[in-house]
Amino acid sequence: MVVSNKGVLFKAIPTGHPVIGEHFEVVDRTIDIENFKLGENELLLKNAYISLDPYIRERMREPHIESYIPPFHVGKVMVGDGTSVVIKSTHPQYHEGDIVAGFTGWEEYTHIKENDEEMNATGRFCLNHAKDSSFPLTHHSHLLRIHGLTAYRGLINFGNPKKGETIFVSTAAGAIGHLVVQIAKIKGLYVVGSAGSDEKVDFLLNTLKIDAAFNYKKVNIDKALSKHCPDGIDIYFDNVGGEILDRVLLHCNRFARIVVCGMISQYNIRNRKEKYGIKNIDQVFAKSINIIGYLISDFWTINNDTFSKDMEEWLESGKLIYKEDVTIGIDNIPQAFLDMYAGKNLGKSAVKISDL
Amino acid sequence: MVVSNKGVLFKAIPTGHPVIGEHFEVVDRTIDIENFKLGENELLLKNAYISLDPYIRERMREPHIESYIPPFHVGKVMVGDGTSVVIKSTHPQYHEGDIVAGFTGWEEYTHIKENDEEMNATGRFCLNHAKDSSFPLTHHSHLLRIHGLTAYRGLINFGNPKKGETIFVSTAAGAIGHLVVQIAKIKGLYVVGSAGSDEKVDFLLNTLKIDAAFNYKKVNIDKALSKHCPDGIDIYFDNVGGEILDRVLLHCNRFARIVVCGMISQYNIRNRKEKYGIKNIDQVFAKSINIIGYLISDFWTINNDTFSKDMEEWLESGKLIYKEDVTIGIDNIPQAFLDMYAGKNLGKSAVKISDL
Repeated sequence: MVVSNKGVLFKAIPTGHPVIGEHFEVVDRTIDIENFKLGENELLLKNAYISLDPYIRERMREPHIESYIPPFHVGKVMVGDGTSVVIKSTHPQYHEGDIVAGFTGWEEYTHIKENDEEMNATGRFCLNHAKDSSFPLTHHSHLLRIHGLTAYRGLINFGNPKKGETIFVSTAAGAIGHLVVQIAKIKGLYVVGSAGSDEKVDFLLNTLKIDAAFNYKKVNIDKALSKHCPDGIDIYFDNVGGEILDRVLLHCNRFARIVVCGMISQYNIRNRKEKYGIKNIDQVFAKSINIIGYLISDFWTINNDTFSKDMEEWLESGKLIYKEDVTIGIDNIPQAFLDMYAGKNLGKSAVKISDL
Repeated sequence: MVVSNKGVLFKAIPTGHPVIGEHFEVVDRTIDIENFKLGENELLLKNAYISLDPYIRERMREPHIESYIPPFHVGKVMVGDGTSVVIKSTHPQYHEGDIVAGFTGWEEYTHIKENDEEMNATGRFCLNHAKDSSFPLTHHSHLLRIHGLTAYRGLINFGNPKKGETIFVSTAAGAIGHLVVQIAKIKGLYVVGSAGSDEKVDFLLNTLKIDAAFNYKKVNIDKALSKHCPDGIDIYFDNVGGEILDRVLLHCNRFARIVVCGMISQYNIRNRKEKYGIKNIDQVFAKSINIIGYLISDFWTINNDTFSKDMEEWLESGKLIYKEDVTIGIDNIPQAFLDMYAGKNLGKSAVKISDL
């Protein structure tokens, strides 16, 4: 049974924005599933969903540059978090038909070796409980796993939110942002968000019902922050870095917390000399501000029971809406990936590769 | 008894480095002490020591600019922390001969009113215990009060030092820095400092015996940090901001703490657009860095018994050396103040105005 196994190949290292065809592209390949032989402790996965996340740009770099995540190798298929079904297994932990999540190839079928540096077999997360769940599979893949946890831990553990405080969230309609603003509302905060289109602002105000929102592309950021955060900012949940972070520093209250989840505005600027320079960093001591960076990968091993309980309860009661922006088909991964950096997604970006 | 009462007048708001004569200068005045009449709850102080501190530049600003500390008023005497003796009092809390510390004028004699916005009578700190102490008065004025506490709380409360970690301290031979490096040594850290002269580097290496030190004016900062912090930086105690902070971010280890005590390199740049832009701030999330700003004024009201006990014990046992850079005479305040920004002081800058 020879079937299509298209994959997204990493072709060349981009210095700025990646270009389809030049730096990455979908290539036609096939796989003979019936005769596909696994070595010991290996898996063959059929990929159902691929998660598109801003950090992936960091992997498309020169291999000699150190970073928090390994670089991609030119000539290989790109890798990201994904949800898959096990179609062959020689690994005692996994069986045919299991639903698993973890790093997988941007391709239709992925061969997982036991201790591959990119895609680890042993650490794969079992999602079989999704089969009997009232929530869609993607809720289990993203919301109840990485993305929900990123929003939850960032806000609760590092933002230390107190009822009545003002939180400002950038990319508030994005994968993490739209969860942060809702959890902040649940916690009794005054919630202000920025986003890059009027449609997103409308979503924030009329669907998520946060207190204030603005399109950062259409306003003077200083004036917008003065207007929408009249009592100053106690928590800034930063997804963008750059100019917005710089301006926010001037609007922070004493003892403000700046939780840095990511800085998407800077990811495509690879030359460090060209990155945006934060000039108002002196506000950190003038206002006793705490800036906290975190990577959600440090939280896998802690007890996340409270997170699961809270999220499921909020989802079931309708207090929390999970917005997904799912593109269909492996051929559309490259464009969906670029659209994410252009801010075209509303909510969580993912690509559906196949049915289970 | 009419005596001299020279004072340092704030004449005009500087946009960059203050200039003696143009922005501030010593003026001749007199005071008739015998016939000086106090209102209710007032004091007349004879000033013994004036503390020169980098934050004072922040007060020489346009009054409409908000900041963490009130602006000076043009035409009035400048104000700073000082140690004085009470020579007249109508305040029930203070008596003639008491030694007190707190905000006082940069002048020979200061008239303290009960609730003056600049110099509060009620909150004055009693230093009568210094009369019977084996430590010099200035130890009580600075080391065992503001400056020691700034170093101690910054490192212990926010740096969260662990034995064997690497700490890097900028202006390591300065008022706060030279205390931080020694406390860090006591706590078992690998201690690296930077300073702006070879004399200071010599002091750090041969008197304070820290592990490594360099003259930042003579080296490539990146190369110096790579050489002297071979295991990376776990704690950066930042007194300067600017380029050193920017470079340090690239040398931080995961979960590094950056304790921001001040940013002296930026104080004389009043136009925010001209301040140094920190380009490597993305390292905050890439390395899960925590940047913590603090103002020591938030620590007056907490229990500082441990601080006093530790500092006195370290001083007595010779584990901690307190280095002062005392200029003699009120006429020399303006130059000593500028010398501090030029980094000419070794240890804590102060001016002796009179004997008690």
